[in-house]
Amino acid sequence: MTAHTPPADHVRLTLAEVHALTRDTLLAAGLGEAHAAAIARSITRAQADECHSHGLYRLLGYVSSVRSGKAARDATPVLTRTTPVVLEVDAGGGFAPLAIETGVPALIEAAKTYGIAALAIHDCYHFSALWADIEPAVEAGLAAWCFTVGQCCVAPAGGTTPLLGTNPIAFGWPGPPGQPFIFDFATSAAARGEVELKRRAGEPLPQGWAVSPDGRPTTDPAAALAGALLPFGGHKGSALSLMVELIAGPLIGDLTSRQAKAVENGDAGPPLGGELFIALDPAVFGRETLETRLAGAQELFALAKAQPGVRLPAERRYAARARSAEGVWIPARLLAEIAALTTRAAGSES
Amino acid sequence: MTAHTPPADHVRLTLAEVHALTRDTLLAAGLGEAHAAAIARSITRAQADECHSHGLYRLLGYVSSVRSGKAARDATPVLTRTTPVVLEVDAGGGFAPLAIETGVPALIEAAKTYGIAALAIHDCYHFSALWADIEPAVEAGLAAWCFTVGQCCVAPAGGTTPLLGTNPIAFGWPGPPGQPFIFDFATSAAARGEVELKRRAGEPLPQGWAVSPDGRPTTDPAAALAGALLPFGGHKGSALSLMVELIAGPLIGDLTSRQAKAVENGDAGPPLGGELFIALDPAVFGRETLETRLAGAQELFALAKAQPGVRLPAERRYAARARSAEGVWIPARLLAEIAALTTRAAGSES
Repeated sequence: MTAHTPPADHVRLTLAEVHALTRDTLLAAGLGEAHAAAIARSITRAQADECHSHGLYRLLGYVSSVRSGKAARDATPVLTRTTPVVLEVDAGGGFAPLAIETGVPALIEAAKTYGIAALAIHDCYHFSALWADIEPAVEAGLAAWCFTVGQCCVAPAGGTTPLLGTNPIAFGWPGPPGQPFIFDFATSAAARGEVELKRRAGEPLPQGWAVSPDGRPTTDPAAALAGALLPFGGHKGSALSLMVELIAGPLIGDLTSRQAKAVENGDAGPPLGGELFIALDPAVFGRETLETRLAGAQELFALAKAQPGVRLPAERRYAARARSAEGVWIPARLLAEIAALTTRAAGSES
Repeated sequence: MTAHTPPADHVRLTLAEVHALTRDTLLAAGLGEAHAAAIARSITRAQADECHSHGLYRLLGYVSSVRSGKAARDATPVLTRTTPVVLEVDAGGGFAPLAIETGVPALIEAAKTYGIAALAIHDCYHFSALWADIEPAVEAGLAAWCFTVGQCCVAPAGGTTPLLGTNPIAFGWPGPPGQPFIFDFATSAAARGEVELKRRAGEPLPQGWAVSPDGRPTTDPAAALAGALLPFGGHKGSALSLMVELIAGPLIGDLTSRQAKAVENGDAGPPLGGELFIALDPAVFGRETLETRLAGAQELFALAKAQPGVRLPAERRYAARARSAEGVWIPARLLAEIAALTTRAAGSES
């Protein structure tokens, strides 16, 4: 599909229209201005990269959590410099994007000054794509990670009961120029959304994704959703998932995915929790020049891409981003659902 | 097997004997005192945990690299505080254990003071187990990672040509008390040593471990060793492997696994390269008490272990460590090979 072939039942919007639609819908639902604008930036960024799961589709959940009263509508994130290299933002029970925008510039400055720094976001409702959360730090020349726990629906390897979240990990490197190496993946075999899509499509799951409520391997999406997803890559992925629970939970003093589930109101919006960022500046370390380092990484990327069949993480997103300058295609049905939110909101508040 | 059942063709040594044998063998080969003692501590630790691949077996490679002149015999590691939280140790072309012992206490102090710190080891020959490298930081109450590139024998996911190392990742959390959660795994589907063991045993490899030199999937260990191993977990493991190349290589200004291969003399000892440590102190972050954090982690571990079939990383090692207080069983053949090293060394130097 090229940008010139309109998909059936889709409508083309400019990125400015995506942004305005998001912002206006959130404002109509009663969310504060600063939060609405930050979420609009986050959703527009994901939509531009054709990350449909984190684009306009997310608006439904955000609005749901405004209406249910779960997320604070006007919380002002508060940045604390616990040490020169440990920064913490108390999101005050609001959505994550504004808290992230509050903390990341300080993280970048601290990492550039000291070589390494951490940022903990506390007490937030996180619904954004991790790659987008770290991209500003990566674009500023840093290597960066972020970690957050996801919905508690994953059993540890060997087990059968949900204990872990989907627990994504994102990492970025400041190159190649303009298209930095950034990966972002769930430590579960699949994202919960992928299983839901399979269920709607009536398709079986691949082997190894899930167990049914009786603990047996299953390829039935409904049984998987009632049972547990499994980590990717066996005991290694399971260890990584536990690591994410530890560092985005107890390390920073925030909730594990299981603790978050216990306080969840079931409004289909994001879970409560924290997020940990770590950033390092290659320019600060003492050996070799920055040019030599970046050239070493560049050679690695070039040799990887020279192998037929190898694709670097984020390549698809950057291709989508280039296409999206001309606009993005949104399912008409999703736009109707979003429009209905505002109509209802206006009705309920008049 | 219990500690009371002597395995056939094995000899029991006390840990003090393992230490002395290692130290004396390295001294006889011409290695400096401080390096011989640090390697003896490293090998004894691995042997006590029944990590046979990193125990006395490693002595053969260490001696080989002393004799070949690859590793500097008397390099004194030099610690530099590039910033208060970026520490760097120039190993000067010597083996890693002494450089790690030089840097880790400073890493612990910096992380406890500032909440997060990094330690880069430069220009070293690394042959030790990563779990042992981070265990002192974890025992000091920190969460810690370390990363190093391994031998260049892994193709990126989708590819067929070695470009990446086995690139292990270790992470540790300061609990449960006395038996901290520490994992340490190669980001390749298997360690190269496992493939070599399969070859010696005449056993096929599991599907998905490797490709042959023509790029096709293979279960033949010899074809795999001539071709390429694959990352664990498909594109996710491949992304993690690339991450390790970037942060243990260009980020700190050290070699990628491919660059290390280019300068390798083929003596069967360790490759040249760097190692990156990152440590965080949960006590520094601002939310909740340390007790609450450790209790949250403890609950997670307890719930994981309560599921039949789930085992935490390192459990087997701790069980082995308890057994090893009574001594460790070493293959008689390995002891004969080690004895021959010293005889030959004495002969060649008389």
